[in-house]
Amino acid sequence: MSSGSNLPLSGTRLWADLHDIARIGGTPRGGCDRQSLTDADAEGRAWLQERAEALGCHLVLDRFGNMGFLRPGRDASRRPVAFGSHLDTQPTGGKYDGVLGVLAGLEIMRALAEAGAETEAPLLLVNWTNEEGARFSPPMQGSGAAMGVFSPEQVLDTADAEGKRFGAELSRIGWRGRDTLPEMGAYLELHIEQGPELERGGHSVGVVTHALAQRWYEVEVTGESAHGGSRMEGRRDALMAAAPLMAAVEEIALSHGGRGTVGIVRAYPGSRNVAPERAWFSVDTRHGDEAALEAMGAALRARAAELAAARKVGVEVRDFWHSPGQGFDARLRGFVRDAAARRGIPARDMPTAIGHDAVYVARRVPTAMVFVPCHGGLSHNEAESMTPEWAEAGLLVLADAVLDAANSQEPF
Amino acid sequence: MSSGSNLPLSGTRLWADLHDIARIGGTPRGGCDRQSLTDADAEGRAWLQERAEALGCHLVLDRFGNMGFLRPGRDASRRPVAFGSHLDTQPTGGKYDGVLGVLAGLEIMRALAEAGAETEAPLLLVNWTNEEGARFSPPMQGSGAAMGVFSPEQVLDTADAEGKRFGAELSRIGWRGRDTLPEMGAYLELHIEQGPELERGGHSVGVVTHALAQRWYEVEVTGESAHGGSRMEGRRDALMAAAPLMAAVEEIALSHGGRGTVGIVRAYPGSRNVAPERAWFSVDTRHGDEAALEAMGAALRARAAELAAARKVGVEVRDFWHSPGQGFDARLRGFVRDAAARRGIPARDMPTAIGHDAVYVARRVPTAMVFVPCHGGLSHNEAESMTPEWAEAGLLVLADAVLDAANSQEPF
Repeated sequence: MSSGSNLPLSGTRLWADLHDIARIGGTPRGGCDRQSLTDADAEGRAWLQERAEALGCHLVLDRFGNMGFLRPGRDASRRPVAFGSHLDTQPTGGKYDGVLGVLAGLEIMRALAEAGAETEAPLLLVNWTNEEGARFSPPMQGSGAAMGVFSPEQVLDTADAEGKRFGAELSRIGWRGRDTLPEMGAYLELHIEQGPELERGGHSVGVVTHALAQRWYEVEVTGESAHGGSRMEGRRDALMAAAPLMAAVEEIALSHGGRGTVGIVRAYPGSRNVAPERAWFSVDTRHGDEAALEAMGAALRARAAELAAARKVGVEVRDFWHSPGQGFDARLRGFVRDAAARRGIPARDMPTAIGHDAVYVARRVPTAMVFVPCHGGLSHNEAESMTPEWAEAGLLVLADAVLDAANSQEPF
Repeated sequence: MSSGSNLPLSGTRLWADLHDIARIGGTPRGGCDRQSLTDADAEGRAWLQERAEALGCHLVLDRFGNMGFLRPGRDASRRPVAFGSHLDTQPTGGKYDGVLGVLAGLEIMRALAEAGAETEAPLLLVNWTNEEGARFSPPMQGSGAAMGVFSPEQVLDTADAEGKRFGAELSRIGWRGRDTLPEMGAYLELHIEQGPELERGGHSVGVVTHALAQRWYEVEVTGESAHGGSRMEGRRDALMAAAPLMAAVEEIALSHGGRGTVGIVRAYPGSRNVAPERAWFSVDTRHGDEAALEAMGAALRARAAELAAARKVGVEVRDFWHSPGQGFDARLRGFVRDAAARRGIPARDMPTAIGHDAVYVARRVPTAMVFVPCHGGLSHNEAESMTPEWAEAGLLVLADAVLDAANSQEPF
């Protein structure tokens, strides 16, 4: 039986891989635009397939484009221990978000192949489709569909801003499969923190305890368009009602100790000298406490109603997406914590404020997450950065926990 | 010599024409989308050409697509008396804005032809290109170019949101000409008020005394993008700085007694779970007093600087367009006022808060404008509406003033 500690794991190879794949969809400012179901996504997938298959792994491709690379175990009756993340990025994303987890998994497969090592349970390296939710929304559609959070139709029929469908685009790029991913025994995901806590505290690893709850909304304000030369009195300008409501998203987040973001805003008809008849914006709210998160939504709706009455406009706050709080598996968390301790890597427990594929997988499968720092907590940004040492710390801890799970006397 | 009063002018024919051309670019909600240099614009132009040429008028087409239909006068040494407006509309525009002025001019040509009547000065019916400025901005490019307000390159090289050029699109739709419009002796424009004053006061005609000054800006806020799950502390969210600044446009307009509109807003990169790194919006300000208008701009810049400092973002307020206040010709205004009085049509003097082709023409040519009411002052809106009686009142007063100018003992 192998343990992580004696495998020839290489942080240097992992670092080289991270910068090699970053060329696919690479942006002039040093980031990545490899949005889901684009040509760049297809190229990134092929990059991974070539390398994983060269290590003797077998590709399993499901109808949502989720990719699994299976490595047999000694005990075929065990369910595989899975690990991975996502290769897709935001439109102006960085080089590490998601990619680190997949390529660390690839390095584990490579080290095992090099060592000729076996595990009791089979291993499965996963690349989930559309974690980011940038082009097709909501996010984490691949893992959500695989875990039954979304129906197949909900995902495959999702349209992007141009009206193109998820299913059609997946077919177009050549990555629509017919397999079903094997039932997983356990799932582990390594990811950058996308926050500043680890770096601030001098920790190289975060053992993720649970995921914060999220509620996303769509807000639509309906007024009446008017010529830019018309008097201010009697206007029912949709954008002038939307502006303070967008500002309220931040106020509400601050006063409730949560997080609030308006990422997209549009005004119609969209002409310089026309006061808009309609304004639309997205809202993303998050909180560690489900009740406080609901209170944030209620506060947003109350402010919307006030503005609607005061400005004689219609304001609709629609539920768009809800991700309840989600705990992670105690035993797997123990493996992660122990691995860090054995390796002498400074680690701490922490929640995640950010959705991850692991959060959906955790609904069905014992799951744990390993966080590593990124500089300044900056993510979803071309300037996202980290050190090779942090990447290696994550790789080592992930590998140890994966092997502990795969070789455990009590199979998952 | 003919005077307007004995010409067979028909409000019924004018009303039928207004609703006939409204089919071109007609929207499901009863408005018009006949934006400049689109296929619908080309179709509207052909509609006018067919009818004007059938009345013996001669098409003059300049390199900006401005169309003139010339009807000879008895005295070839006189400069033509011109009248008209524009056939282009906003994306969700109405049936009367601009169109009324062109089609009332067509009805004058028709009545003259029917009566076999002559005028001393030649007459010129004009359809100006891109008055609205919706697709290609700024507005009133056709009249502005013809009057030397813009250089030919400034206009022909203007790009729309997709990067298509004014000149190329004008060629594509087949309306790029080689003529120069004749030097005009006088110019009269009939237009809906696009405000509620006339209807409120029970006046069917407004004699426009002068145009309010306008200043348009572009505002760009530059912050830093961050993941929607990141802590609120330390964010430099561009949209959260833009929201109160957009709201300030309204506050500043109200406190200065002017008008202020934000018609377009965009946030980048435009993803639900990314706090925007950049926000951009347009600002349109107007005031009767040039100094007060400048004070509005200064107030906007001051608020921008406050927000930039408080939120550690960059805020740039760029001048986009300036239209100074402009008076109209006293003698032509007298013709309009006298015509209304002779016809027993209730009329009042008033300024325009809205830019019109007449405002640019007035820089070079003695000019007057005739306003007629529209319901509720509603314009740049598919629900824009007016009565046939108001349209007819405008037609009669315009016709009388045009003939008075064309037949005046003191040529223009």
